[in-house]
Amino acid sequence: MSSTVAAGSKGRVLLAYSGGLDTSCILAWLIEQGYEVIAFMADVGQEEDFDAAREKALKIGAKKFFLADCKKEFVEHLIYPAVQANCIYEGVYLLGTSLARPVIARAMMDVVVTESCQFISHGCTGKGNDQVRFELAFYALQPDIKVIAPWRDPVFFERFAGRQALLDFAAEKGIPVFQTAAKPWSTDENLFHISYEAGILEDPDVTPPADMWKLINGLDKCPTTPERISITFKKGIPVCLLIHPEGAQPVPSTDGTEITDPVEIFLTLNKLARKHGIGRIDIVENRFIGVKSRGCYESPGATILRKAHMDLEGLVVDRNVRALRDQFVTTELSKILYNGYWFSPEREFVQSCLQKSQETVNGRVRLALILGNVIVEGRMSESEALYDAEQVSMDSVTNFDPQATSGFIAIESIRLRKWGEQRLKKGGNVKPESVYAPKTEI
Amino acid sequence: MSSTVAAGSKGRVLLAYSGGLDTSCILAWLIEQGYEVIAFMADVGQEEDFDAAREKALKIGAKKFFLADCKKEFVEHLIYPAVQANCIYEGVYLLGTSLARPVIARAMMDVVVTESCQFISHGCTGKGNDQVRFELAFYALQPDIKVIAPWRDPVFFERFAGRQALLDFAAEKGIPVFQTAAKPWSTDENLFHISYEAGILEDPDVTPPADMWKLINGLDKCPTTPERISITFKKGIPVCLLIHPEGAQPVPSTDGTEITDPVEIFLTLNKLARKHGIGRIDIVENRFIGVKSRGCYESPGATILRKAHMDLEGLVVDRNVRALRDQFVTTELSKILYNGYWFSPEREFVQSCLQKSQETVNGRVRLALILGNVIVEGRMSESEALYDAEQVSMDSVTNFDPQATSGFIAIESIRLRKWGEQRLKKGGNVKPESVYAPKTEI
Amino acid sequence: MSSTVAAGSKGRVLLAYSGGLDTSCILAWLIEQGYEVIAFMADVGQEEDFDAAREKALKIGAKKFFLADCKKEFVEHLIYPAVQANCIYEGVYLLGTSLARPVIARAMMDVVVTESCQFISHGCTGKGNDQVRFELAFYALQPDIKVIAPWRDPVFFERFAGRQALLDFAAEKGIPVFQTAAKPWSTDENLFHISYEAGILEDPDVTPPADMWKLINGLDKCPTTPERISITFKKGIPVCLLIHPEGAQPVPSTDGTEITDPVEIFLTLNKLARKHGIGRIDIVENRFIGVKSRGCYESPGATILRKAHMDLEGLVVDRNVRALRDQFVTTELSKILYNGYWFSPEREFVQSCLQKSQETVNGRVRLALILGNVIVEGRMSESEALYDAEQVSMDSVTNFDPQATSGFIAIESIRLRKWGEQRLKKGGNVKPESVYAPKTEI
Amino acid sequence: MSSTVAAGSKGRVLLAYSGGLDTSCILAWLIEQGYEVIAFMADVGQEEDFDAAREKALKIGAKKFFLADCKKEFVEHLIYPAVQANCIYEGVYLLGTSLARPVIARAMMDVVVTESCQFISHGCTGKGNDQVRFELAFYALQPDIKVIAPWRDPVFFERFAGRQALLDFAAEKGIPVFQTAAKPWSTDENLFHISYEAGILEDPDVTPPADMWKLINGLDKCPTTPERISITFKKGIPVCLLIHPEGAQPVPSTDGTEITDPVEIFLTLNKLARKHGIGRIDIVENRFIGVKSRGCYESPGATILRKAHMDLEGLVVDRNVRALRDQFVTTELSKILYNGYWFSPEREFVQSCLQKSQETVNGRVRLALILGNVIVEGRMSESEALYDAEQVSMDSVTNFDPQATSGFIAIESIRLRKWGEQRLKKGGNVKPESVYAPKTEI
Repeated sequence: MSSTVAAGSKGRVLLAYSGGLDTSCILAWLIEQGYEVIAFMADVGQEEDFDAAREKALKIGAKKFFLADCKKEFVEHLIYPAVQANCIYEGVYLLGTSLARPVIARAMMDVVVTESCQFISHGCTGKGNDQVRFELAFYALQPDIKVIAPWRDPVFFERFAGRQALLDFAAEKGIPVFQTAAKPWSTDENLFHISYEAGILEDPDVTPPADMWKLINGLDKCPTTPERISITFKKGIPVCLLIHPEGAQPVPSTDGTEITDPVEIFLTLNKLARKHGIGRIDIVENRFIGVKSRGCYESPGATILRKAHMDLEGLVVDRNVRALRDQFVTTELSKILYNGYWFSPEREFVQSCLQKSQETVNGRVRLALILGNVIVEGRMSESEALYDAEQVSMDSVTNFDPQATSGFIAIESIRLRKWGEQRLKKGGNVKPESVYAPKTEI
Repeated sequence: MSSTVAAGSKGRVLLAYSGGLDTSCILAWLIEQGYEVIAFMADVGQEEDFDAAREKALKIGAKKFFLADCKKEFVEHLIYPAVQANCIYEGVYLLGTSLARPVIARAMMDVVVTESCQFISHGCTGKGNDQVRFELAFYALQPDIKVIAPWRDPVFFERFAGRQALLDFAAEKGIPVFQTAAKPWSTDENLFHISYEAGILEDPDVTPPADMWKLINGLDKCPTTPERISITFKKGIPVCLLIHPEGAQPVPSTDGTEITDPVEIFLTLNKLARKHGIGRIDIVENRFIGVKSRGCYESPGATILRKAHMDLEGLVVDRNVRALRDQFVTTELSKILYNGYWFSPEREFVQSCLQKSQETVNGRVRLALILGNVIVEGRMSESEALYDAEQVSMDSVTNFDPQATSGFIAIESIRLRKWGEQRLKKGGNVKPESVYAPKTEI
Repeated sequence: MSSTVAAGSKGRVLLAYSGGLDTSCILAWLIEQGYEVIAFMADVGQEEDFDAAREKALKIGAKKFFLADCKKEFVEHLIYPAVQANCIYEGVYLLGTSLARPVIARAMMDVVVTESCQFISHGCTGKGNDQVRFELAFYALQPDIKVIAPWRDPVFFERFAGRQALLDFAAEKGIPVFQTAAKPWSTDENLFHISYEAGILEDPDVTPPADMWKLINGLDKCPTTPERISITFKKGIPVCLLIHPEGAQPVPSTDGTEITDPVEIFLTLNKLARKHGIGRIDIVENRFIGVKSRGCYESPGATILRKAHMDLEGLVVDRNVRALRDQFVTTELSKILYNGYWFSPEREFVQSCLQKSQETVNGRVRLALILGNVIVEGRMSESEALYDAEQVSMDSVTNFDPQATSGFIAIESIRLRKWGEQRLKKGGNVKPESVYAPKTEI
Repeated sequence: MSSTVAAGSKGRVLLAYSGGLDTSCILAWLIEQGYEVIAFMADVGQEEDFDAAREKALKIGAKKFFLADCKKEFVEHLIYPAVQANCIYEGVYLLGTSLARPVIARAMMDVVVTESCQFISHGCTGKGNDQVRFELAFYALQPDIKVIAPWRDPVFFERFAGRQALLDFAAEKGIPVFQTAAKPWSTDENLFHISYEAGILEDPDVTPPADMWKLINGLDKCPTTPERISITFKKGIPVCLLIHPEGAQPVPSTDGTEITDPVEIFLTLNKLARKHGIGRIDIVENRFIGVKSRGCYESPGATILRKAHMDLEGLVVDRNVRALRDQFVTTELSKILYNGYWFSPEREFVQSCLQKSQETVNGRVRLALILGNVIVEGRMSESEALYDAEQVSMDSVTNFDPQATSGFIAIESIRLRKWGEQRLKKGGNVKPESVYAPKTEI
């Protein structure tokens, strides 16, 4: 029975396994240390030979192997809320790695519970964000779980101080090693994005080589004519993607291929964005532990979705709701995601008003994709009517008394005039040196 | 003497004159109403025949004509602080019109004071943002100024209810009208940007015609090879633009043409961005008076600068300072600019800490410009050293004890584990329906 | 039938009537102007002879008179959400007037709809907050309602320029005037508070005379022994008030009188606070229209509730949720209330996450009331367990590895040490003039 | 020479010494471990026999003893900026302990530098805030300092697991122990406040015994007549305290005793507040490490100053500046202080705009102190004139056109009416269940 740990065992560990050298060695090492190990993989849309990984894990000595298909959960519970909130970290990073972590952690906890594991282990390094994101999620979901983080355990990291030590250990344990020419950077991939960091990228002034970028076409490979699509949102969630036929004009149209499955919409946007060179990012970001690090990312579909969603919000969300949502939800939820606090009271709190803000985000955005650009060509909403062309038109005075604005300005200026009087009384005048902040001395 | 108003005059008005039909008629009308009128134009970098405008104003009856060259003041006192703060409105609009208003208003107040005007007048319509921006600035700088806003005065707007009435009045007053085919939208231009709004753009689902865009090349007109530049910032201000020679590689280099004059840097960036199709925007935005309106903008150079400045900040600004600056200064200063509160105590307050945040923004960013894209290819800083490649490197344990992270996570998870215990005690588990927010019902 | 306006009438007006001189004259004046008038009073707990007011209104010529009992709605829909959010304006004012306005406006709209009124009118002056609060609520609830605000209509305010003109008009129209010695300030009362402003209070350096304060005992009138009470909250709402017997000791106890009706709880707290001198406020505040004004307030029960609720939150609300709620909900909802935006999308947005934040606010607070002081003597929660005496105890190392804190500090200091190195490199040292901000020059 | 560590020594340690049992044992233990120890005490206004402590430290074996008088630095560089910012943590705690830490840490670093210490040590426990505050300050000021925290070092804390072990060690080392009856709580005192925590206070429902409170009179000991004072601020700093003679009336007056020295003002306010029972606090707060803890505090003078400063700001600070300062500076600086980030880039950033906000905080506040209450009786400013009694007066229409307000409301309601139309179109009405948030279900 699964809850009985083998006699003599230190206990049962669920290991986040990748099939690579590191976690294969960790798997063997944990067994060597006296643990019973169950290997776990999450399918979050990365390119991976899961069967080979399973076989390898079992061969090394894993008692069981679990593969969890997290793609739908990933899209629906993490990615789409992030789209609703226009999440972004430090103005640039779309949080692709961060978004996958809660889903993987939750799926692991599922196995921890059903398989009665006392321990959980992973191959994250000791300086990164992912160890924090995983472990905070583990602890929040199962407060009494015990974490084994070999790369932070001197017994492990002192023994395996370089790649050669791992290779030797692999040889000793009969772990097959596939001799791929190691890339001078490391990557993490899922259906939202791929990240590149470390290695030669550690110098922030080194331009990533063109052949590093794996997902998205370079501009020299992209078609030179625009592809037109329409995305329909309901409560801020994309519910329909319409790919207009080649040569479609920039006008509203219902012609084309229609996709309505949430995961399919996201994957198709990925495909389109990759084709048109959309979604590369290069940033020096601030990790949660307080060091600056350089990361390169390809987030194809998400880049389109963010632009489309933000554009539609301009049409259908109240100004003040939007400003509050931007300042509060967008900023906080992005930070929560980046730092790994998805399973937390503050995320629940923030998300509770996000939903409210999206009730009116119903409508359709027309886009042209071309050469790295996502161009909004039009937007409309059948159900929402905050935009009033008649009202805003300079040619119309219906529903609008221009004199009202005089009163508005008179009242809004009361405070400023009082301040201006005070400023003049204290010797101010209208010269630049009196009215502007001192120029930055350079 | 300038402070003596002609006998029989209702007083002296300084009129913001554009040379166009509207303000020419307003000029004639004000004279007809018994005012003495001084015409004023600000050179904020727009394409304009100022001599022709001067001649026209004087011919219509303006007592004097003032042309103020505001370009340097515009760049140094408004644009560059906005660059330092990464200002943006509703996530999209770079505030080109808003930025010019305080400069023009201040220059007008200069003339108001020296010419002892009791009144000030402008041709802004009654539904827009500009009337508010101008008048709040006027009142803040000279609290006792009196504003004449003809398009909000029924005596005026009822008399001149359509374009034909203006044309008739112009004929009557001998005002020359240049028969240009009227564009089905209106524009406002300065050295930062050009805006397009109204007319056919009032339908937010109408794609702007390709020939509307006046400044920036369409992608089909752009070179297909990247142009490489380096921008050096000092305290967040661009102090050097280096245009690398054609065919330059994506590596640090000091080859090329160097520009160091602040205004010249901005104008050259404009030229480069226009050539490479960079800086078009199409947005439904929320006006200060509370209506939604659709605007299209071309902000070429500013688009490059914003990306470069934000990127450099990643390298040289402390994480927490940046987060606070983003949440507080960027948001507030953008709102202040958009709504027309530049001359206000809150702008002074916000700008006082902006300066502090820019003290370390010293360094150089390398960029490639191509086909609408601004691609960051590298960044470095000689003086600032918050980024530490050694420290962040996965290969190095110098200056970093991996076990410290265990302690960090242990402490950071105290609160979450308490919350998790409570959640489980109340019947929660690890299933999706227990740990996620309810899915948005669509 | 109510929807038929009398022939010759300009239309039907619902008038917010108070029974006083101003609104009685407005009533007569509206009739004189050709309107059919329905008088409306809301019972929000103020001391008032509603029957006399009804009789007077009808005598003056009102077609009908409506009295709406809004007390329960006031407490449940406005006051208690404000308690949940710890609402306060500018750190001092508990928003008693603001809280009553939405309730009154909604009740009036009820009559507007059932009686098919085209107009609504009120006696608010042209400089205050209340006109804005009422009218924004009217427009939000019934966008096509037309407002008649006599004190902003020159036809009215020029005719009735002083009190004598009103008295003369009252005499002419046979409106009975009760000759009460006018107080040199004006007041507004409801079950939450009473406000005093204008008149002698307009000098912010004038101390309010002791006999101005109407509700709350001066300290010289208060008992000198504490009265002990316990308040139980459920989801942030007070659900039980226990008044312990005289002489009760500061220990948990279930002895005493128990009150559980929401309105009754609030009214009883008012009574207790008034007896013990609790809840007087004197403030210079900033009105929505941008002028500073001085207000004095007595908010007895609300003062107790706010302190109790905030104290309990310390025990049962997560730290980060509380910080976000404070910064976001408390601040915004207070501003929304003060400025009169209760019926708005932003209030709905903000309130949606307020509810979430209160889910754990379950527990009981013990208080002593004495001589103007509300003293918290203890708090507990049966259902919530975020507080862990064992965990926090200095004497216990259970569940806590002191070495973890070393790791925590090591990681938290990475960023600061980098900054410190940079500071020293640039010539900083540890002297006061190097490490502190420049002292304010005075 | 001070920079030469004795041969055989592990290095030189600067120890934050208190004279008590813990740090005396730590001193002896450090020597036993092979360190050379310098003892350090900071005079931050606590009641202490510094001479006895010096003698004791030297007797135990400290090489040197330093006493730093930090009182003036404490008041001027920490307390007064906190007064300017109205700092408060979680709505209740005035941050008395937090405020002292940076001053002590800085003074220690002074000695570390002059005495060339490689190590620094303290007696803080492993669960509290103070260890974090001290060490973050140490690292920020001297990034290469090494910290010895015995209560987090298992070698130490396992050896000295209970009080008896410490007593035994003291006996062994000849450390004199003064047999005071230990209080069932621990305290920390400085000139700002005294704190009480731990022991019997760990049950948050235990009322602190009356004789715990050491500084401030119980209400039964307070005079029953008010004492009147006037405090004058310049740029937000108290520059003059005027104590009016007994029996003074609540009117502006210059009679009385005047105090102008910054430290003296603070100490005198302490004395007055203690006499009148002002400044007791009892709170469950959230520590930086994420646990909830209960603290009781007496902050006499600070309580008066905060109320006075906030009141004056109402008169002289612009509304929008104040709102931004409250939301941004007050909140952030309080958090920075509590968590121990005084020496950080974010504190410098925040403080840079605090200064700006205080430029107009010039004026005088009149207060009555009585029975735990601080009652504002009036305020005035000679130099600042944002308050305009004429303008705000209901009796005056000078400088104010009541019709302007109609325009203001018309414009402000555009957005709300659009929203209201939309709401009605979607089936909303004016009934409570349609316009309010769902009532909290209890």
